[in-house]
Amino acid sequence: MYRIPILQMGSALLVTIQVDMEDQTAVQLQDDLATRIETSGATGVLIDISALEIVDSFVGRMLASISGIARVLDATTVVVGMQPAVAITLVELGLSLQGVKTALNVKRGMLLLEQGQHGESLERD
Amino acid sequence: MYRIPILQMGSALLVTIQVDMEDQTAVQLQDDLATRIETSGATGVLIDISALEIVDSFVGRMLASISGIARVLDATTVVVGMQPAVAITLVELGLSLQGVKTALNVKRGMLLLEQGQHGESLERD
Repeated sequence: MYRIPILQMGSALLVTIQVDMEDQTAVQLQDDLATRIETSGATGVLIDISALEIVDSFVGRMLASISGIARVLDATTVVVGMQPAVAITLVELGLSLQGVKTALNVKRGMLLLEQGQHGESLERD
Repeated sequence: MYRIPILQMGSALLVTIQVDMEDQTAVQLQDDLATRIETSGATGVLIDISALEIVDSFVGRMLASISGIARVLDATTVVVGMQPAVAITLVELGLSLQGVKTALNVKRGMLLLEQGQHGESLERD
């Protein structure tokens, strides 16, 4: 079965989504991420979707779900690298990724996570 | 066409290989990496292969080729996250990834790159 790798970068976990997700892969990723947050004590999760040319409601729900799971485990999730065309389509479809933080790229996502760790107020959607 | 995303982490570029590579994808990755090293001025390339359960001579050659291209552009390549079973098979097959630096995980790979930047002697295979 296809399994998306999770990389640890300092106190953050990094996931690069490269292929269209199936139900099974998405569930596996959620499980793996929850376990890794627990074992590593990570305080942030970065999800890179720069390779995705389509983000439909399934992927949107999955991102929201991962974000929710991470939040309960005291970690902040930031989705990074969304292609401009994807952002346009999402808004046109009325999918606004509520409850999911986003950043332009990995660097800015990391910055957002660090700000959160230093106690600055981050808006919660 | 399938295109592997390249993420920038500080002065290093990170590539996560998640699926079996075809010729076209491998060539595209080499092109993209060379361009990104030039535009970003990155001094290191981390290639994560933790998702690969098979590393055959094709992948081995590709890793050596990327490493060679990066070296000419003054960047060090480190392959990280190799599964134990893959390492065993590689040695049994007589493929020793000559000229390619390896590290256990991303954290150690980053450390190896930083040491290189600070002018400490890194063994060249």
